[in-house]
Amino acid sequence: MSILLLVPPGWGGLWQSPLSVGGRKVYAHGVDPYDPAEIVYAVSFRPPPGLLKSLPNLKAVFSLGAGVDGFLLDPDFPKDKPLIRFVDETLSREMAQFAVLHVLMQHRTVAHFAAAQAESTWRQRMLPRPTEETRVGILGLGEIGTVCAERLRDMGFPVTGWSRTRKSVEGVKSYAGAGELDTFLAGCDFLVCVLPLTPDTRHILNTETFARLPKGAYVINIARGGHVNEPDLIAAIDYGHLSGATLDVFETEPLPETSPIWKHPKIIVTPHVAAITSPTAATRSILSGIATIERGEEPKNVVDMTRGY
Amino acid sequence: MSILLLVPPGWGGLWQSPLSVGGRKVYAHGVDPYDPAEIVYAVSFRPPPGLLKSLPNLKAVFSLGAGVDGFLLDPDFPKDKPLIRFVDETLSREMAQFAVLHVLMQHRTVAHFAAAQAESTWRQRMLPRPTEETRVGILGLGEIGTVCAERLRDMGFPVTGWSRTRKSVEGVKSYAGAGELDTFLAGCDFLVCVLPLTPDTRHILNTETFARLPKGAYVINIARGGHVNEPDLIAAIDYGHLSGATLDVFETEPLPETSPIWKHPKIIVTPHVAAITSPTAATRSILSGIATIERGEEPKNVVDMTRGY
Repeated sequence: MSILLLVPPGWGGLWQSPLSVGGRKVYAHGVDPYDPAEIVYAVSFRPPPGLLKSLPNLKAVFSLGAGVDGFLLDPDFPKDKPLIRFVDETLSREMAQFAVLHVLMQHRTVAHFAAAQAESTWRQRMLPRPTEETRVGILGLGEIGTVCAERLRDMGFPVTGWSRTRKSVEGVKSYAGAGELDTFLAGCDFLVCVLPLTPDTRHILNTETFARLPKGAYVINIARGGHVNEPDLIAAIDYGHLSGATLDVFETEPLPETSPIWKHPKIIVTPHVAAITSPTAATRSILSGIATIERGEEPKNVVDMTRGY
Repeated sequence: MSILLLVPPGWGGLWQSPLSVGGRKVYAHGVDPYDPAEIVYAVSFRPPPGLLKSLPNLKAVFSLGAGVDGFLLDPDFPKDKPLIRFVDETLSREMAQFAVLHVLMQHRTVAHFAAAQAESTWRQRMLPRPTEETRVGILGLGEIGTVCAERLRDMGFPVTGWSRTRKSVEGVKSYAGAGELDTFLAGCDFLVCVLPLTPDTRHILNTETFARLPKGAYVINIARGGHVNEPDLIAAIDYGHLSGATLDVFETEPLPETSPIWKHPKIIVTPHVAAITSPTAATRSILSGIATIERGEEPKNVVDMTRGY
């Protein structure tokens, strides 16, 4: 009944003690010696490929993040075991805070006023575009996307969403499926990407989809770096079609020091911090999932392996 | 039945044409010649002292802003005429956007990540304080303050409010009256001031009240410059008791180029733009008020001259 933690060196401490309730053994891979036969549950953001397959008594795998693309990269992932996503209101709330913050920083022209302050000059201006004419589109209207949509809607923005299947969110127009993507994109002055990363969504943001956005649109990616073709994004901004972007995630993380993205004057970079999984919330969620499985019931938030999230 | 606009030179054009519906005459003071006897309604942010008194047939005065302290500074203000505040959901919404933006900029440490980007370095960090432990207090829980409180509450912050009389806002603890001010202040990691400016609230934010805030508190003033004793604020920040401030309003506006506030590293300055009155919304509100008066009914949002808002 032991738990194996597959996390970067030094991160085990955050999780080991809260998960050890009731005397359960929790091993940090690479730090603590353990017998693979003893491991019943594994916890990770992104396990070393092949490792999960080597655990003969594994019952379930818990993801510490909302996205599970790091698990699906393992060609030997044991697909007959439930992989459980981390779904938590604190995570959705942090993501929505980040989306609201970065939409408002552009909408309320924070950079303009910072420049005026740097010159000690009183430089009033109206909003470049009234709130009720500033359309925000949420690419990925799932658990997290819905909270982002609701918070932005409450700020007064007209909000739409796009997802694989149609959703029902009060006051938010829902577009669904590949056939409605172009129509959705054409109505986004801000595009906030919170999609899961799957083979279908990899590089969904590229020259072709950027061209569908209205001129001057601003892109915010808080999902996965793999959603954005980075050279295409830089070209769309430099060409003047997009007004800029906020990127929290990148094709390669940490973003290499040599990447032109760091110094781009119209791109805001943050280091994958839109939502940081809270050890308290994640522990609560994992322990509750384990208790459900031990009662012989079906745990919540099991990943559908055919759709990939 | 004519309207007199008392606005800074060059601003009349924004209002003159939308108010002229149905052939009503709208004069811009200082630009158009007019007969004082012809004026029935006056529209202003801050009229020249004595001028309103000189209009013999004046029926009512409309404020273009939510605050009416600019009218009450006129010792000859005709207190027997209704003074009507501008109350509009777009104004409250813009104020709430500004409050949310500046709370989130500090809470999510925008400056930390901007500095990291400037050095092309990947510098992850947790939130300095979890959202659910970051207490936001709204000083002035009226029409605008309530919307600010609701939006910040929806972001996950514990929110309280203080006002002259007790208010009922879902999920927001309401403190009332001078006797509860210290208790309220002691629970504010962020303090957002949206009070009306009256003799009772002038310099309400001073060394003594700053000392009641917890160490590290951050002050956001989007009400009137007169609420803050500016030298006291600078001292409280420099002493290390407050972590900083965002100021949209100042004792003297435009903020003089020589003010030490401009260059203070822990103060964000914006030029009175937390909410800019929308000509469309204000015109709609004024025309509706005039129609109410012409029907012989009592208009909404008439200022109570004894309390001053």
